[in-house]
Amino acid sequence: MKSFASDNYAGVLPEVMVALQRANEAHARSYGADDITARTRTLFCDVFDADVDVYFVFNGTGANVLSISSATQSYNSVLCADISHIYNDESAAPETFTGCRFFPLATNEDGKLTTDVIQQRLIRKGDIHYAQTKLLSLTQSTEYGTVYTPDEIQALAMLAHSNDLYVHVDGSRFFNATASLGCGLADVVTRTGVDILSLGGTKAGMLFGEAVVVFNNDLKKHIAYKHKQSMQLASKTRFIAAQFEAMLQNETWRKHASHANAMAQYLAASLSKYPQIKITKPVQANAVFAELPRTWNAPLQTAYPFYIWKDTTNEARLMCSFDTTKEDIDGFIALMAKL
Amino acid sequence: MKSFASDNYAGVLPEVMVALQRANEAHARSYGADDITARTRTLFCDVFDADVDVYFVFNGTGANVLSISSATQSYNSVLCADISHIYNDESAAPETFTGCRFFPLATNEDGKLTTDVIQQRLIRKGDIHYAQTKLLSLTQSTEYGTVYTPDEIQALAMLAHSNDLYVHVDGSRFFNATASLGCGLADVVTRTGVDILSLGGTKAGMLFGEAVVVFNNDLKKHIAYKHKQSMQLASKTRFIAAQFEAMLQNETWRKHASHANAMAQYLAASLSKYPQIKITKPVQANAVFAELPRTWNAPLQTAYPFYIWKDTTNEARLMCSFDTTKEDIDGFIALMAKL
Amino acid sequence: MKSFASDNYAGVLPEVMVALQRANEAHARSYGADDITARTRTLFCDVFDADVDVYFVFNGTGANVLSISSATQSYNSVLCADISHIYNDESAAPETFTGCRFFPLATNEDGKLTTDVIQQRLIRKGDIHYAQTKLLSLTQSTEYGTVYTPDEIQALAMLAHSNDLYVHVDGSRFFNATASLGCGLADVVTRTGVDILSLGGTKAGMLFGEAVVVFNNDLKKHIAYKHKQSMQLASKTRFIAAQFEAMLQNETWRKHASHANAMAQYLAASLSKYPQIKITKPVQANAVFAELPRTWNAPLQTAYPFYIWKDTTNEARLMCSFDTTKEDIDGFIALMAKL
Amino acid sequence: MKSFASDNYAGVLPEVMVALQRANEAHARSYGADDITARTRTLFCDVFDADVDVYFVFNGTGANVLSISSATQSYNSVLCADISHIYNDESAAPETFTGCRFFPLATNEDGKLTTDVIQQRLIRKGDIHYAQTKLLSLTQSTEYGTVYTPDEIQALAMLAHSNDLYVHVDGSRFFNATASLGCGLADVVTRTGVDILSLGGTKAGMLFGEAVVVFNNDLKKHIAYKHKQSMQLASKTRFIAAQFEAMLQNETWRKHASHANAMAQYLAASLSKYPQIKITKPVQANAVFAELPRTWNAPLQTAYPFYIWKDTTNEARLMCSFDTTKEDIDGFIALMAKL
Repeated sequence: MKSFASDNYAGVLPEVMVALQRANEAHARSYGADDITARTRTLFCDVFDADVDVYFVFNGTGANVLSISSATQSYNSVLCADISHIYNDESAAPETFTGCRFFPLATNEDGKLTTDVIQQRLIRKGDIHYAQTKLLSLTQSTEYGTVYTPDEIQALAMLAHSNDLYVHVDGSRFFNATASLGCGLADVVTRTGVDILSLGGTKAGMLFGEAVVVFNNDLKKHIAYKHKQSMQLASKTRFIAAQFEAMLQNETWRKHASHANAMAQYLAASLSKYPQIKITKPVQANAVFAELPRTWNAPLQTAYPFYIWKDTTNEARLMCSFDTTKEDIDGFIALMAKL
Repeated sequence: MKSFASDNYAGVLPEVMVALQRANEAHARSYGADDITARTRTLFCDVFDADVDVYFVFNGTGANVLSISSATQSYNSVLCADISHIYNDESAAPETFTGCRFFPLATNEDGKLTTDVIQQRLIRKGDIHYAQTKLLSLTQSTEYGTVYTPDEIQALAMLAHSNDLYVHVDGSRFFNATASLGCGLADVVTRTGVDILSLGGTKAGMLFGEAVVVFNNDLKKHIAYKHKQSMQLASKTRFIAAQFEAMLQNETWRKHASHANAMAQYLAASLSKYPQIKITKPVQANAVFAELPRTWNAPLQTAYPFYIWKDTTNEARLMCSFDTTKEDIDGFIALMAKL
Repeated sequence: MKSFASDNYAGVLPEVMVALQRANEAHARSYGADDITARTRTLFCDVFDADVDVYFVFNGTGANVLSISSATQSYNSVLCADISHIYNDESAAPETFTGCRFFPLATNEDGKLTTDVIQQRLIRKGDIHYAQTKLLSLTQSTEYGTVYTPDEIQALAMLAHSNDLYVHVDGSRFFNATASLGCGLADVVTRTGVDILSLGGTKAGMLFGEAVVVFNNDLKKHIAYKHKQSMQLASKTRFIAAQFEAMLQNETWRKHASHANAMAQYLAASLSKYPQIKITKPVQANAVFAELPRTWNAPLQTAYPFYIWKDTTNEARLMCSFDTTKEDIDGFIALMAKL
Repeated sequence: MKSFASDNYAGVLPEVMVALQRANEAHARSYGADDITARTRTLFCDVFDADVDVYFVFNGTGANVLSISSATQSYNSVLCADISHIYNDESAAPETFTGCRFFPLATNEDGKLTTDVIQQRLIRKGDIHYAQTKLLSLTQSTEYGTVYTPDEIQALAMLAHSNDLYVHVDGSRFFNATASLGCGLADVVTRTGVDILSLGGTKAGMLFGEAVVVFNNDLKKHIAYKHKQSMQLASKTRFIAAQFEAMLQNETWRKHASHANAMAQYLAASLSKYPQIKITKPVQANAVFAELPRTWNAPLQTAYPFYIWKDTTNEARLMCSFDTTKEDIDGFIALMAKL
């Protein structure tokens, strides 16, 4: 099966599989005290051009919850997009583990948060009756497949910091976003003032594993303890570290993320030939959003699964992965031609 | 490096690595809706001879916390051994996620819980001021490397059930225990009345991953939601399922667990030749506990890392793994001969 | 000082003070096992015309959090008005104690929830990624001082129940609402299908204390344990029970709530004589919302404290209490005349 | 009824009742912004001879949980006596609200913690797998009715502080303890290094209410927010403050606590005349522990309720209150004479 449902339907990059096999030799200290983890942490400092702390975790929800817990007390609130993964797709894990309130903010038509909506929630500071806002969480690339520019992130971070909020980036597709921007990883976070990043590995082609990258020293104080406590510490950490080492070395990530992004462009271009189809969001990373004739859903989804993002307009979300091929897209388009 | 520190210092079984590579083809539905997960769940029902629910999780703490949360409300308490992993080595994750109180119970000299110590804590039922006891958690094999017999587990389960408690087994080394008993997996849990099992994969030779196996229908009600909420649901679940499939098929687990157990016997036999050394616990699974001359620690640990379990008597815990060889042990013993 | 800031600025009703003194004799069993508590519980069954369970608690946040916790698991979500007290004024207590997600819903211009906004959130049932909606929380009287009719509550309860949700009423001003409706307590909750009620005593003139009234048997299962666990169980419970006994006997509550409501009508009528003032919400209980000239705030608030509810339009919230007098209002209005 | 069951069976001191009535005039700002609260806070600074922060709360569990939450993160552990109220009688409220692990310590024969048992739990500092110990909680007077001397508290506090732990005193009977010591309030806490105190009002003769007194500035940072979040903030705070004002002015507390203590001495002396009765603990505050003939329980408890503390030896706990009279005790003893 090939699908456009999610980039987590894809398997594992060959470079990653090789790295896993190479890491599988003899014994290594557990819980992150091994050599591979040590040198991969150094590699993170290099590629993010900062003295970052790095915590390897199992999945995206774990990365987000750990990030949030490092920046908050239980009486705090978090600002996030109303379409964000932490607001819609992580059960009540964020609340249960951190105790915090989550305030949803409306995004602009590109799925991005803007300073004005944030400003409206920067209220009641010091009022004990109100869950005190302490964290702004952004998603890069956004749920609409768009990409914040470094300038946009910097503006949001400045607003947040000047109001005593930290900034978190949920980067489950951070590699796609950075590849789309054509800049370095550090340009998007280190140089914009982001305090903590959930860096996604799984959707980028790893077997499993994400990394929490901590830029702000304030957030380094408790996080090692929260890492263990949030059930996100792998005993055989070397097998997550080795995957990230493979991803970061020689910018392996960029090659594959750029390919996925290019496939999204090719898909969008192919779809745009159909007058029945309306591309609804700017295609900037590896997602294409498009309104389709509703009757097409069933035959298309049978062959190439995908999700309907918005039922009322039959807007589909079509995700491309590192292993999406032109042939996959051509096959998908060819199927449309018959409908 | 080869070590006797922990079985989580070892890497990945060849059968498991092959299974991971084989699972890495094309796209598969995420979050456990894939074919490999489906057929592995069926395999669990077969090997446990019961209509079990199975939840694949990332690590041992995750397995234990998910198991406990499926059986408790926040005003409950849990009975566990004072030497248990959930009491000593999982931070306050059990409390933070479940809200429950954990009562430590003294074990007998073999590290096992007995009916009399449990009986003493079966108090104040219905008293709202007292965290109501609802779960008994056992460890198989125990922290001392000993193994409960099915009869022992059944007796504890009967006491628990007759007092309205559920029974959880923390089985991070359940394969070692079952191999030691020379019986089937179902004999140890299904037929003894255990309600829920944390079945360890990582220490048995998997790259990562454990399984929560639910026997009691009461505990199946909320657990799917808790699974997600506890940050233990892998998007690419097929890569945990495939490892377990490889472990369970043809009892791959027994071959490797028996080897680790045999190495522990060989190590114990080798150590017992030294009059300076005292074997302190029955060697039943893959651990050897032995008091060593304190001056031996440094030179031995440099070459073969291991942990001192009890400082006052310099009692070492020496763990054997699937990949421990006679040569490793002979080398370790040879090093002793020089001291 | 007399104020229009909040009905919790007022003191204690004379009937309540007498009841407290009368309850203060000799010894009584603690934690609710006393005679006054027993007979007050019976009185609740009478006035609510149902076999209700009653839990006396300390404050409104305690009542709401206990109510919510009795109806939810940690992976659930709660629907509430975006202007509600539980969403804006109880810190993150609801999340920290219950673990749940809270979804804010827009209200209509009268501050009421309607079936259509609820319907839009009745989504993704059974989807483990989404915090499963289990409770609808209404406020009676609303934050705008308006009052749901029994028919309106019944319609919302029917929608909730048909979607497997429970219905909670935050009734910190339930007596004012019921007095406004001119019906019995049972008409508003028992006969409309409400499952659990936070019945406010403090704002109605008690020294402290609220009651959680449980109608639905499902919600009676865990609540006694949660009551203690949520730190809401008074050792000298008789002193909360005695106050409620005084309130419920001979409908003491109605006399005082009706007075407060009448004072709000008198205040609104007095204000409406000023063309510079705009009454913004229907005056149905004991609150008056009115837009004032901004320059009036300082001189008025110095003499009679009140809160500005909405800064952009300088909309004031003016609350009347059981002890608000015509003289207070006349004095307030007279002060306006000088501005 | 008069009883020896608990000092929370007693009602309200006349001085307190007068204070409540006096506080009940006109309107006062809510949530602690009123004048009575302000001047009572100043009074606390005076009597504790320190720049303390004071938070008025509803009950003992609330006071303890708020105190603990001000000093801990969720990955911390707390050391407490295995016979303590927070370990046995507060459900799992401490865990649910703070997330922490609670380690029980054995007490000496007087029910006191000693440096050696504490020392044994000061382990694994910095080890992320172990819930990091951060707080020592003492009970004054103890569960056995004994009283720590200031020197004893100071020695425990020094050990705690030198290991980076804070010290909490659960003082639900702190007034009785201090009256027994014959010193000032500040001598027992301020001058011994205690960081935070739960000061009991209810058992001392208040209608309801306790105070959390914060000595250490570290613990003042978050506590105002936790106060609200833990559902312990009274809207009509003046009615708790006024009671404490009455208790603290002219050492009202000492008069009544000394009386209760004296009654315990009189009771013990009266009991000691019976050879069948064995006084089991030193009588230092307002409790008497005594082994009675088991057959006496029923007739005695019918007239004067009390609790059996230890079933195996039929050891009764007999509590005296501010309103216990010689006549009550003589009546109790006279009843014994007939058995």
